[in-house]
Amino acid sequence: MKEKVVLAYSGGLDTSVLIPWLKENYDYDVIAVCINVGQDAELIGLEERALKMGVSKVYVENVKDEFMKDYVFPMIQSGAIYESKYYLGTSIARAVIAKTLVKIAEKEGAVAICHGCTGKGNDQIRFELGIAALAPHLKVIAPWRIWDISSREEEIAYLEERGLEIPVKKDDSYSRDRNMWHISHEGLDLEDPWNAPLYDKILKLGVSPEQAPDEPTYITLTFTEGMPTHLNGEEMDPSHLLEKLNELGGANGIGIEDIVENRVVGMKSRGVYETPGGTILYKAHEELEHLTLDRETYRFKQEVALEYADLIYNGKWFTPLREALGAFVTSTQKVVTGEVKLKLYKGNVIPQGSQSPYSLYSENLASFTTGDLYDHHDATGFINLYGLPLKVRALMEASHKNNN
Amino acid sequence: MKEKVVLAYSGGLDTSVLIPWLKENYDYDVIAVCINVGQDAELIGLEERALKMGVSKVYVENVKDEFMKDYVFPMIQSGAIYESKYYLGTSIARAVIAKTLVKIAEKEGAVAICHGCTGKGNDQIRFELGIAALAPHLKVIAPWRIWDISSREEEIAYLEERGLEIPVKKDDSYSRDRNMWHISHEGLDLEDPWNAPLYDKILKLGVSPEQAPDEPTYITLTFTEGMPTHLNGEEMDPSHLLEKLNELGGANGIGIEDIVENRVVGMKSRGVYETPGGTILYKAHEELEHLTLDRETYRFKQEVALEYADLIYNGKWFTPLREALGAFVTSTQKVVTGEVKLKLYKGNVIPQGSQSPYSLYSENLASFTTGDLYDHHDATGFINLYGLPLKVRALMEASHKNNN
Amino acid sequence: MKEKVVLAYSGGLDTSVLIPWLKENYDYDVIAVCINVGQDAELIGLEERALKMGVSKVYVENVKDEFMKDYVFPMIQSGAIYESKYYLGTSIARAVIAKTLVKIAEKEGAVAICHGCTGKGNDQIRFELGIAALAPHLKVIAPWRIWDISSREEEIAYLEERGLEIPVKKDDSYSRDRNMWHISHEGLDLEDPWNAPLYDKILKLGVSPEQAPDEPTYITLTFTEGMPTHLNGEEMDPSHLLEKLNELGGANGIGIEDIVENRVVGMKSRGVYETPGGTILYKAHEELEHLTLDRETYRFKQEVALEYADLIYNGKWFTPLREALGAFVTSTQKVVTGEVKLKLYKGNVIPQGSQSPYSLYSENLASFTTGDLYDHHDATGFINLYGLPLKVRALMEASHKNNN
Amino acid sequence: MKEKVVLAYSGGLDTSVLIPWLKENYDYDVIAVCINVGQDAELIGLEERALKMGVSKVYVENVKDEFMKDYVFPMIQSGAIYESKYYLGTSIARAVIAKTLVKIAEKEGAVAICHGCTGKGNDQIRFELGIAALAPHLKVIAPWRIWDISSREEEIAYLEERGLEIPVKKDDSYSRDRNMWHISHEGLDLEDPWNAPLYDKILKLGVSPEQAPDEPTYITLTFTEGMPTHLNGEEMDPSHLLEKLNELGGANGIGIEDIVENRVVGMKSRGVYETPGGTILYKAHEELEHLTLDRETYRFKQEVALEYADLIYNGKWFTPLREALGAFVTSTQKVVTGEVKLKLYKGNVIPQGSQSPYSLYSENLASFTTGDLYDHHDATGFINLYGLPLKVRALMEASHKNNN
Repeated sequence: MKEKVVLAYSGGLDTSVLIPWLKENYDYDVIAVCINVGQDAELIGLEERALKMGVSKVYVENVKDEFMKDYVFPMIQSGAIYESKYYLGTSIARAVIAKTLVKIAEKEGAVAICHGCTGKGNDQIRFELGIAALAPHLKVIAPWRIWDISSREEEIAYLEERGLEIPVKKDDSYSRDRNMWHISHEGLDLEDPWNAPLYDKILKLGVSPEQAPDEPTYITLTFTEGMPTHLNGEEMDPSHLLEKLNELGGANGIGIEDIVENRVVGMKSRGVYETPGGTILYKAHEELEHLTLDRETYRFKQEVALEYADLIYNGKWFTPLREALGAFVTSTQKVVTGEVKLKLYKGNVIPQGSQSPYSLYSENLASFTTGDLYDHHDATGFINLYGLPLKVRALMEASHKNNN
Repeated sequence: MKEKVVLAYSGGLDTSVLIPWLKENYDYDVIAVCINVGQDAELIGLEERALKMGVSKVYVENVKDEFMKDYVFPMIQSGAIYESKYYLGTSIARAVIAKTLVKIAEKEGAVAICHGCTGKGNDQIRFELGIAALAPHLKVIAPWRIWDISSREEEIAYLEERGLEIPVKKDDSYSRDRNMWHISHEGLDLEDPWNAPLYDKILKLGVSPEQAPDEPTYITLTFTEGMPTHLNGEEMDPSHLLEKLNELGGANGIGIEDIVENRVVGMKSRGVYETPGGTILYKAHEELEHLTLDRETYRFKQEVALEYADLIYNGKWFTPLREALGAFVTSTQKVVTGEVKLKLYKGNVIPQGSQSPYSLYSENLASFTTGDLYDHHDATGFINLYGLPLKVRALMEASHKNNN
Repeated sequence: MKEKVVLAYSGGLDTSVLIPWLKENYDYDVIAVCINVGQDAELIGLEERALKMGVSKVYVENVKDEFMKDYVFPMIQSGAIYESKYYLGTSIARAVIAKTLVKIAEKEGAVAICHGCTGKGNDQIRFELGIAALAPHLKVIAPWRIWDISSREEEIAYLEERGLEIPVKKDDSYSRDRNMWHISHEGLDLEDPWNAPLYDKILKLGVSPEQAPDEPTYITLTFTEGMPTHLNGEEMDPSHLLEKLNELGGANGIGIEDIVENRVVGMKSRGVYETPGGTILYKAHEELEHLTLDRETYRFKQEVALEYADLIYNGKWFTPLREALGAFVTSTQKVVTGEVKLKLYKGNVIPQGSQSPYSLYSENLASFTTGDLYDHHDATGFINLYGLPLKVRALMEASHKNNN
Repeated sequence: MKEKVVLAYSGGLDTSVLIPWLKENYDYDVIAVCINVGQDAELIGLEERALKMGVSKVYVENVKDEFMKDYVFPMIQSGAIYESKYYLGTSIARAVIAKTLVKIAEKEGAVAICHGCTGKGNDQIRFELGIAALAPHLKVIAPWRIWDISSREEEIAYLEERGLEIPVKKDDSYSRDRNMWHISHEGLDLEDPWNAPLYDKILKLGVSPEQAPDEPTYITLTFTEGMPTHLNGEEMDPSHLLEKLNELGGANGIGIEDIVENRVVGMKSRGVYETPGGTILYKAHEELEHLTLDRETYRFKQEVALEYADLIYNGKWFTPLREALGAFVTSTQKVVTGEVKLKLYKGNVIPQGSQSPYSLYSENLASFTTGDLYDHHDATGFINLYGLPLKVRALMEASHKNNN
């Protein structure tokens, strides 16, 4: 019996060509695994195509709920954003995909996992670090770092030579990665950062602010311990909640980012990201944290968010540090329960009020009036001590001036 | 000859009432100092009013350029934003005001400085820490923490009893603070965080996104070492540049934030801030940093920005730590030179491309193709070592499982 | 029936004088509570003395085990050290004392808690913040910030006037705070930082390195998930383990620190701390972390330790941030299990080897030889990508030079 | 004319063998460069040996003063220590060596630099990142990652086959790296972390605490803006100051660390470091910072120190982030001027008092007594506001309990 390789298969040209290549170069049985993290439409007919290409087995795994609950929602809670703009849509999906590939590889007794990532990107790192952490004995095959094929044309020729069907790539323009959380766009005119993005041509999940309706959309989101649970008062499971928000966000031109970012492998790249529903969720969650977290927790959590984002971006989800930061975040979320009203309008997510049973806001305290809890005179003492180090230093300096 | 007190005077009711009160309670000569940080319109007739109230001298100091160059622009360079939203408009102005008050107090040989801040806010702290740092021997008088007056009505009565003119407050609704960088709004319906802000009633520097024109405005900003110098190719001094950007930003519904924030004195408060030009400058500056800063500098600078924001918010501008962080920031800005194109549209500041002679973006490196600088095979080695700690740990864990 | 006040009572002069003072000024029933955190010897005859002074009830609460398990050990796990030197001995004890005072106040239905801390120190803050967090409705009475007594002599006079017994202060020199974790010394000649500490006169828990024996002591400590459990192979409960280590550490001149530190209330103070057993535990624990924590976890945990130390020092044990950081730390400790050998010798704690079932050290990997897990060639790829940003920047700079 | 390669040459076996290898495999003229960072003794006869081996030119560059002034002293100022123990002796030297190699390569018009580091260590990274940053066009040759030689025996055979002299390795036991700042020891019995280091066999720069004299040594160090300038009142240039301190520290058993550390390339390694003079300098400098830095500067500087240490360890000295952190540190050092007394005794560096014209310590403020600057009553106000967030939260929680 032949040894088996699990192939991360998308149905597109780049991963289809790996099937004959793996069989010829390694003499493996190829098990194609397509992991559904929300690219749904791309999955139609996929199984049949894979079998025609010569795989011995096909898995199509729907992990959408797991993706939301165990990866995306904890990330929202953490507040992680990479380099001020990127909601980590591709990065976070790689973690759940790596985990699922490993699961199937172990079930099938495969000896290797193969992926179709290029040698210049971040995704190869995310897959391979995930596999290293979860199944260190598995071999990883990354053909794009090994073989001589170096263009789309050569891929097509490779398949034609073998009489195999050429997958129709639905879109032959930008390089894209899509899942239920986001879609990314790279390449073509975006490769010059001086070019403005051609949003009319680029966008897939929604429209630009200019194309959005003139009437705003009002929504209410409910969170329980940092987890979004209801939209407009209706309880929804994670996937449906996000799908609905993607629809509303996309229609209102929300969640479009254009970024020049630093890749793990050392160079800058430029991309456009659409995260319509995700942007709404991040902003809603933040509103509730403003209301319920105390100052010092909020402040340190900002540093944790920076680190958490790095870990996700760098492919280090399955690490002790990510787990420990996760424990920190979970602890802070006990009070992040309540409702947030938002207005969606032409690219804007405008807060319309929020409330929480754990709100630390006290109208009584905030207002001008003196109440039980606050005595204006206390401020004098507070300021005197708070400013004491500045005064001590200034007096020291003054004494030097006087001596000269 | 009487001792002198320098009074931070705005021309409004709250500081006017301090004039007779200081004379009666301290027997000081009162020197009214009004520091123009961009509230311009409020200054008309101010000198005359002050003299009628009984001050012995009036200063109206225009520090707008100093405010921009020595305070606001370094803050933009630092990227400081308080609690994710607040561009520190009131906070940063307090520093230059404190410095100017001290300068005049020293020139006049005054023994004290008096301010009209309430005992529940941040501004008392910022003034008093500034004074402590710059002139520790000066006495500070904060009547709102001392006297019995506790409302607007009592202030008016106090002046009427003495036959003094009652300053007409231009706006008797929200509590506001205005300078050339921003305006803040607090109070009334904003005191309940569940209320949506009534922007039509609140806004002063611009309109809401809904009221903004349907046609976008395109601009280009030029920076030299992190300092904005040109708008649309035209060189402008700091104040005019900002004024022009306030106009454009305000007209396009940009820079409106609604925040529940944590005050230094321990409670949460809710406010609406307008920072139209400032928001544009922050975003433009950030675009250029994405292009010119390397990954690790960008990352650590994000932590510095959090600390820098705290210092400004907490009134600690004149401290060794703020200076040292400033030195860090200045060092990073050597390469933040170039141009940024932006589209302003209904609340959105949409990047339209940026360029810099110090750009670290290389189209050659970013693209799929292999070039001189990058060999795909290197990625294999990189990933193997980058992921080695995860593998070592996983093997250690696996050995435990096997032993059980 | 009179209202009750719970008095934090130590048996010394400073808290004894509070008994008549409270009765005279508040007409409360005074309940003296002495919380035993390891000052044992000072407790003899305490109950009787308190009753003679006029209290209506005395509690002597032994919380030593709770102190170790719920406060000190989590602190060791966190690695918290204040300003590089201080093992937080007084600070951390204040937390358990505040909690116990509140527990008794609630049991007794008291309306207030009274403490004898001065108005210049940190302890008043730690007590009062603890009480604020645990029982916000309780009134706090801090006589030293209220009354006119301002010296030891006046305290004695106050008691003499009332015919009350004067507690014999066992030591009338340095100002000291002692518990099972440490003892602090302040005052007298220490008040000039240019003076060398007179250790022969100061030390209470051990001897100076010069006085320590010429023969070293060898010990082995065992940890389970970051908790010390065995000394020299013998299982010990927390209190006995520490007591034994205090003995050994003290005899060997270990754990003496002389520090000029920054107090919360804004000034610097100078003190000498003895933490003999604690120093050993910190160092042993750190050895095991070097062996078992991965690089990134170790690194971020260093930042957490800084924050954790601040929180303890500042009296913020009972806060959401301390809890959340605690969750982080606990997560990291899962693998901190193993044994550490140490040599104790004249002030030195010298590691003599450590081992752990979760060790991430691999002799195979560390040595010169190439093995399965490591291919020297990978280093080339690693370095090329790791250094790529530096190269890109250098090329950019070179191109500028060439253009000039 | 042949192309030239600059060889980092130490005179030992590992770099000698590179000379014929480079000539045979690249047909380069080999220029041997030996950079004296304080390994002095190893340099005797080195030039002659290199010429006999076949190099066309030899440089012996003494960069000891530059090493101290431009690298080590700024590092001391930063407080950088890697993983709590390592004073970065080898790491920091690699920076100045890389810089000097580049300088000579440019002077000679060489096309490549060759080093003899193994493929498992950190030093290859430090050299190559330094070269990438300073001379990106230079080729780097790292034979240990290329050739087939894999042991000392094979090296000797390689030289014997060519009739070349075999350099006598002075010490054939531990793997060592020495410069004026430190010496490191790895290998042999140290490769098992459960083994106690055999200090009698290992140590080169001094003795163990047990072997140190029974009489302490007292010294005084003077700093000006964070730079050590005088020992016992005598002005000394950097190199001589350090040499003298190495002598005193070594004799007193100071500065010996045994650490299991995380290498950049992903594995843990175990080493013993001797940094006798350096340990004294770090501790003295820290004493002065305790006296002269305010609390917040000290605190943030601790975070900077962690980052600074990583950068040095990781070979990133010539980076914008290191420069920017350097600017931060320099700014903080303006006040780190004064004198520190120390007692050196059997491994201990015991502070004996310090003083500074910029001291922020005020005996008046620290002591029990109330003075001009401090009013005990202020503490009440301070604590009330400082603890307000805890109280607000506790009341919120209490209200929940009451509702249930």
